[in-house]
Amino acid sequence: MSDYRAPVKDMRFVMDELAGFKELSQIAAYEEATPDLADAILDEAAKFAGEVLAPLNRVGDKEGCKLTASGVNTPNGWKEAYAQYREAGWNGITSPAEFGGQGLPDTLGIVVKEMLCSANMAFSLGPLLTTGAVEALLTCASDELKAIYLEKMVSGEWTGTMNLTEPQAGSDLALIRSRAEPQADGSYRVFGQKIFITYGDHDMTENIVHLVLARLPDAPAGVKGISMFLVPKFLVNADGSLGARNDAYCIALEHKLGIHASPTCVMAYGDNGGAVGYLLGEANRGLEYMFIMMNEARLGVGLQGIAIGERAYQQALAFARERKQGRDALTGEALVTIDKHPDIRRMLMLMKSRVEACRALAYYTSGLLDRAHAATDADEKRRNLFLAEFMIPIVKGGGTEMGIDVTSLGIQIYGGMGFIEETGAAQHWRDSRITTIYEGTTGIQANDLLFRKLMRDQGATAKVVFGEIYATAKALGASGKPELQAIAQRLGIALKAWTEATEWLAGNAKTGLSGVLTAAVPYLHLAVTVCGGWFMGKAALAAAGYLDKGKGDQAFYRAKIATARFYADQLLPQAIAFAETVKAGDAALAGIGDEVF
Amino acid sequence: MSDYRAPVKDMRFVMDELAGFKELSQIAAYEEATPDLADAILDEAAKFAGEVLAPLNRVGDKEGCKLTASGVNTPNGWKEAYAQYREAGWNGITSPAEFGGQGLPDTLGIVVKEMLCSANMAFSLGPLLTTGAVEALLTCASDELKAIYLEKMVSGEWTGTMNLTEPQAGSDLALIRSRAEPQADGSYRVFGQKIFITYGDHDMTENIVHLVLARLPDAPAGVKGISMFLVPKFLVNADGSLGARNDAYCIALEHKLGIHASPTCVMAYGDNGGAVGYLLGEANRGLEYMFIMMNEARLGVGLQGIAIGERAYQQALAFARERKQGRDALTGEALVTIDKHPDIRRMLMLMKSRVEACRALAYYTSGLLDRAHAATDADEKRRNLFLAEFMIPIVKGGGTEMGIDVTSLGIQIYGGMGFIEETGAAQHWRDSRITTIYEGTTGIQANDLLFRKLMRDQGATAKVVFGEIYATAKALGASGKPELQAIAQRLGIALKAWTEATEWLAGNAKTGLSGVLTAAVPYLHLAVTVCGGWFMGKAALAAAGYLDKGKGDQAFYRAKIATARFYADQLLPQAIAFAETVKAGDAALAGIGDEVF
Repeated sequence: MSDYRAPVKDMRFVMDELAGFKELSQIAAYEEATPDLADAILDEAAKFAGEVLAPLNRVGDKEGCKLTASGVNTPNGWKEAYAQYREAGWNGITSPAEFGGQGLPDTLGIVVKEMLCSANMAFSLGPLLTTGAVEALLTCASDELKAIYLEKMVSGEWTGTMNLTEPQAGSDLALIRSRAEPQADGSYRVFGQKIFITYGDHDMTENIVHLVLARLPDAPAGVKGISMFLVPKFLVNADGSLGARNDAYCIALEHKLGIHASPTCVMAYGDNGGAVGYLLGEANRGLEYMFIMMNEARLGVGLQGIAIGERAYQQALAFARERKQGRDALTGEALVTIDKHPDIRRMLMLMKSRVEACRALAYYTSGLLDRAHAATDADEKRRNLFLAEFMIPIVKGGGTEMGIDVTSLGIQIYGGMGFIEETGAAQHWRDSRITTIYEGTTGIQANDLLFRKLMRDQGATAKVVFGEIYATAKALGASGKPELQAIAQRLGIALKAWTEATEWLAGNAKTGLSGVLTAAVPYLHLAVTVCGGWFMGKAALAAAGYLDKGKGDQAFYRAKIATARFYADQLLPQAIAFAETVKAGDAALAGIGDEVF
Repeated sequence: MSDYRAPVKDMRFVMDELAGFKELSQIAAYEEATPDLADAILDEAAKFAGEVLAPLNRVGDKEGCKLTASGVNTPNGWKEAYAQYREAGWNGITSPAEFGGQGLPDTLGIVVKEMLCSANMAFSLGPLLTTGAVEALLTCASDELKAIYLEKMVSGEWTGTMNLTEPQAGSDLALIRSRAEPQADGSYRVFGQKIFITYGDHDMTENIVHLVLARLPDAPAGVKGISMFLVPKFLVNADGSLGARNDAYCIALEHKLGIHASPTCVMAYGDNGGAVGYLLGEANRGLEYMFIMMNEARLGVGLQGIAIGERAYQQALAFARERKQGRDALTGEALVTIDKHPDIRRMLMLMKSRVEACRALAYYTSGLLDRAHAATDADEKRRNLFLAEFMIPIVKGGGTEMGIDVTSLGIQIYGGMGFIEETGAAQHWRDSRITTIYEGTTGIQANDLLFRKLMRDQGATAKVVFGEIYATAKALGASGKPELQAIAQRLGIALKAWTEATEWLAGNAKTGLSGVLTAAVPYLHLAVTVCGGWFMGKAALAAAGYLDKGKGDQAFYRAKIATARFYADQLLPQAIAFAETVKAGDAALAGIGDEVF
């Protein structure tokens, strides 16, 4: 088992220097989010994550969940940990005060989320889904439904689920078959089977609020005929007490590669006469509502890659500082801890620099969403929202792919012991593997970046990003410091690669669709790589400023510059390769069909 | 569960066109290895692998091995499958006829090995270790020990193990503490604990022959004081029958991330008075003997990455051809199998092209070893041996890292179903994860390539390789065919990157050791990438020849060219990035110590 200590100092650096948290508290909507309050919250969250959730991570992996006659049982200690989580008020920190939340900005909330997920990804999924469901109700529920459900979901007294997938409908939601029949009282009866339902059932709360995508009898075919329904596990009486058990049951649990403690349920709705459900918002707009939440959910999953990467890094570093093996190649010292070996250092720095780059992108994006949310000027709102939406597939795709790579390096640093489950390094790798799949695969993120985020404004948002990266490179170059200039040079080359690849895509979008689609994922990797370098460059500039002033922890700021330079040397050169690959399109497959396989 | 059909046609193409198998049968030593015999052997092996071993792969993963009072029990069906394996004579096909083997070349043996490993990696490890032990006995056992043990190990009647690792001695074998005390009768008593012993105990054979590294009482410290001992599970009587149970026991099984059906044992030697052992070869030369076998063992592990990548590819392709999801972006067809989506095609082609590139490198290397083995001229022997030894870390490092990437793509193609263990895609990924660790981590392969294989002859062998790659690029360029010329161009650029990085290393080896050590793994990736492109280029040339002549399966040859071009477009550009990274060395970490983490 490994410890987890939230990297509060790093997190705070990103919040303040790269995500504009300090400025957020100047906005009226977030005036309560003072630096002092942030300190207090981060310290408490770090304590809860490290002391309560982290020790349960391996327990959960070993025990998993069990389906019994009375429903799903979570692993030992889960119920108690959830009770502590709820009682401490963690669930509602970013929810509106109107429903019992604290109304704090996401830029603070995302840091707490990272801690919970680093400590125990399987645990953190329950609250993540609940927050998503809360967002959905805020978006489209009637006042009556809001009054009945929201407060209890914000507090965490009840959890929420999202029911999209069916056996035949995964990435393609047009194929959803679940149906809902209107009843005389205005409610509906929902029928259908849903799969891959996270926390579809569990024993941590008295009630569960399922949001279910289904079709009305007269609905058009395809995605334009999907509506969203609220289906509680237990019906709720007028006085708020729990009524009859609804016809919504977990009928099987999946045996998964990772996140064993997160129950992944096959849910049967209406096998015994119909599950009582309530229409959310308007008929046939279910997918639209889902997409409103999707951006934030995707940011949350990108964060999972970062969180689990951080955990794996801490564990690998602790091991490398203890394990003695081999002679120091430089000093000749006979038996040294393996963190002295240059290749182990390289791997640790790869882990650290990639996690930090993605963390900066995620927090920055969160800051943009907060600004969009709080903006009173329509243009400012739109600008921040478009920027955030442009970044989200980059954070989701980049954070999750990074998480898999970084947790794999964590195993590698352990050597043979990494392959033994007791060590815990393998669990991070297994847990991380779902993140590039759920909430839209990496391929779907790439298409979202290309066909929605890049092209919807004819590249206008992309140009803003390119301009900012150029400005960062210029500032690095003008610093007069060789270590920053080295970053500037590589960032400039990488930016050029990205702009050229973007031009190639724009030029081929109409006539060479197959090539563009083939290039989508390499293009996403390209964007991730360059954006990571952009924020590492910004971090280095901020750190250099503090070094110049002789303020604060000098070693910390020197480390930030070294980490940024390492990223520039080891990661940024890949931009050239990705751009080459993008521009190759699918030329290799021209003139050949399925017989190529 | 997934099927496995050995890709005999692809394998044969590589053997004949890229590994020089046809020419081998012209050499006296291998005159029996006719094309007809090869056909017969490959067909039979494919049948055995597909029908007997492949169906047990998932069974083994689910059941794992169990340690009972009487020893280790393998999963259901294992014993019977092993009996079939042994009876069909598969174990000894490349062993010397003198001890009951068939004396066939490794270039044929490696193909059979790939099939067994694709079908069931956990099963194939037993025979792999036995073959390694046979090699060790051939290298250094006395005639008496050979007479007692070799025939039964060649036939597979007994299996073999290699006992190197101890809890404190992993990559650093200098730390081995196991000891051996000489006895009056010339035998030894061995004492010590070994960990990670593959098939250290099992119920498939009556006896197991352990090769154990240990120290004699007067041995010098470090790696120069390690001797190798043969320690049988059961002592062998003069008439060849089994005698007393030796003091060598499996005392625990590891719970591993993958290869569950391969028992990974903690072995206790001498807890009850001492395990009877016999010195192999001369005292204190154990590590040297181990290294003689190491090259072949590493080739075998590189092959595992290829084998499991092939299996994952077949499974992903079968799924992609069945699973319907989404609209065809090009034709607009409403609901198509996912293999029609460009990003899925990209992933399938990545899997296929990377597996094929590494397979070609592995078989080619095997061919070099056969040539070295059979050569009567000392120069020719040395030339082939040096080339093979240069390629081995490339195959080991490249094949295994590729295997992890490719099995991960296999999961990705499955989407959510890939995360469910029943599907079987996740098992390949888990199984593959050990391959970059055992028989020397990727970091150790990189150091081997750099400090032994590259520098021992001042780059002379590397120059031979560079020359051959140049010749291949030139031939592609001179073909007059645009698709080959496209490969030529990328191969030329990649080769230039490799030579420049090599020059940088040579120039810094003495003065910038820390930077060179930091660059070792990126350098290995660079070598793998370019060598893969070299052999894909050779494959494309061979295929173009058949197309020109209008001979054979034209679709097959067109696919070979498309696959080579795909590799060139998607993989070769990475060479530039790796070279940049190599040349960056550890500049980022200059002037900063442990406080960077």
